[in-house]
Amino acid sequence: MSGQKAQTFISHWLPKLEQELYAQLANEEEALAGFYGMMRYHMGWVDETFQPKLTPAGKRLRPMLCLMACDEVGGVPVQALPAAAAIELLHNFSLIHDDVEDGDEIRRHRSTVWKVWGAPQAINTGDGMFSIAYRAIQSTARLGVPDRTVLTILNIFTDTNIRLTEGQYLDISFEDREVVGVDEYIRMIMGKTSALIKASVAIGASIGGASMAQFGVLGQFGHALGLAFQIQDDILGIWGDPEMTGKAAGNDILRRKKSLPLLYALNHGQTAPQLRALMADEMTPDQLPQVLALLEQVGAREHAEEIVRRQHETALHALEEALGERATESALYELADGLLGRRS
Amino acid sequence: MSGQKAQTFISHWLPKLEQELYAQLANEEEALAGFYGMMRYHMGWVDETFQPKLTPAGKRLRPMLCLMACDEVGGVPVQALPAAAAIELLHNFSLIHDDVEDGDEIRRHRSTVWKVWGAPQAINTGDGMFSIAYRAIQSTARLGVPDRTVLTILNIFTDTNIRLTEGQYLDISFEDREVVGVDEYIRMIMGKTSALIKASVAIGASIGGASMAQFGVLGQFGHALGLAFQIQDDILGIWGDPEMTGKAAGNDILRRKKSLPLLYALNHGQTAPQLRALMADEMTPDQLPQVLALLEQVGAREHAEEIVRRQHETALHALEEALGERATESALYELADGLLGRRS
Repeated sequence: MSGQKAQTFISHWLPKLEQELYAQLANEEEALAGFYGMMRYHMGWVDETFQPKLTPAGKRLRPMLCLMACDEVGGVPVQALPAAAAIELLHNFSLIHDDVEDGDEIRRHRSTVWKVWGAPQAINTGDGMFSIAYRAIQSTARLGVPDRTVLTILNIFTDTNIRLTEGQYLDISFEDREVVGVDEYIRMIMGKTSALIKASVAIGASIGGASMAQFGVLGQFGHALGLAFQIQDDILGIWGDPEMTGKAAGNDILRRKKSLPLLYALNHGQTAPQLRALMADEMTPDQLPQVLALLEQVGAREHAEEIVRRQHETALHALEEALGERATESALYELADGLLGRRS
Repeated sequence: MSGQKAQTFISHWLPKLEQELYAQLANEEEALAGFYGMMRYHMGWVDETFQPKLTPAGKRLRPMLCLMACDEVGGVPVQALPAAAAIELLHNFSLIHDDVEDGDEIRRHRSTVWKVWGAPQAINTGDGMFSIAYRAIQSTARLGVPDRTVLTILNIFTDTNIRLTEGQYLDISFEDREVVGVDEYIRMIMGKTSALIKASVAIGASIGGASMAQFGVLGQFGHALGLAFQIQDDILGIWGDPEMTGKAAGNDILRRKKSLPLLYALNHGQTAPQLRALMADEMTPDQLPQVLALLEQVGAREHAEEIVRRQHETALHALEEALGERATESALYELADGLLGRRS
């Protein structure tokens, strides 16, 4: 989905990242085999009996952004590997807890951790992975990165974690509310999704020795990319091709998920009353065309696409400011471009 | 419960610690009032509607150990305040999650966070407090503590968090097992209880500038104290005076909690068959005398008390090695002594 440069970078660094992740979750104590086994299961490396069995993992988007940002500012990506692993572990810890919180039974075509081992173990397994993410990022200090830089990336990491939980608080709170404003929604995803994508870029840039100016604009790049990424996800959740996304058509509508296009129409004078009435109760697939027609009536899709376009533009401008003319030829540019043109 | 010196220290530092905790959990964003409100509720500062209402908080034992250790090695306790707050926040994050995992509805005579706001918010609130604990400990870098020391205490903190979750994994696993060995139990509490008490001392000593030798023996002090503390808790859970502990007589027996005295008798040839049969199902208060008689028959209480005594001795020896002759006159000594002579 990305250009040649990004593909080459990913092919080179993805196996090294996986190795780093394996090493971070290594533990030989027999009594703890189940504890680390649950983490490895979630990562897609073993089955429910802890026997090796690879299943397709996530895209590892965030750690790749971290390594690329380090590389683009002239740093040595190998110094950013433990931090990249930490970011991926943090992302996965939050998925383990999200699955418990949302009661989701399936992730990546397999039972979720809580579904197999119960909520108590799943909560604690997430806590363990959270702690191990810190061990990973702290180990950066052993790779010749200055202490001051290690403390800086720890500050970014921790502030991001706080933002993540703030975003998740808002997201859970929204479930109990009939109406949520578009602005409130944007505030929520700034915490829940955008913060970690921004941090991935900022941490990689810090380790790579970015100048203060570069660091600032790369942060803007990450922020805009994160927002665009989430809203693109929202669009795919409603209009994505089921064959590409692996989810039912109109999936997010059927789940009554408060995503941007829906909130736009739910807050639009023209469609609000009818849409609210329609969605007051559980949705059935035969109601889908009616909802989609209402979204079309107020241009909900175009509105969301316009935001994606604008954020994408902001992101690329920031990248040009950070990297100069070569920005459009960078792996980071290609990756960002690919992410927003994606269909799954 | 402690001597004069410890009391004086605590009277001086407890209000400063509370102030630091307040500051760490401060947030003015209106949309997040509920998020930080839940944390403040758990800490005992506000009621369920987030109105100020102080309720008796925990003993703040761990942060006090941290501040005292800093003081005893010649450091400036004010430099250890954010770390002490971080330790207390970490302890409280683990309580919020433990309550969800154990399904406990009451803590300190009030409804637990999950009981009031549901498990999803409680899990996420715990995650938030965990992250804020890191922000607190990282802020030590702004108090003139060298970067290298800040990284050292972060390593101790993170290793402790991993140990905590490992211990909790074992504890949850034990619930599904009919028999757990005494050694397995000790391994579990080394992670779940002892590690954080040890870390409290070690972090305070590091910030205070302890020598390598002092640091090592103070670690031993903390480890032994932590073990003794937990087993003393186990004894009180069975034989504690209900008026002092605020819990029913034989509380842990009725809950069939796998604590040391019970495991000792459950693994003892003389009492194992009868006790296992008795405790195979839910317990009723009228069965209590029978269980207590079996425990007495094999000297389960004496066995536990003997371990407490031995660990207490180990702790005090280590303290003498660290502080020399003045050890027995130190606040740390008095606090340790008071903890093990306690009745609640």
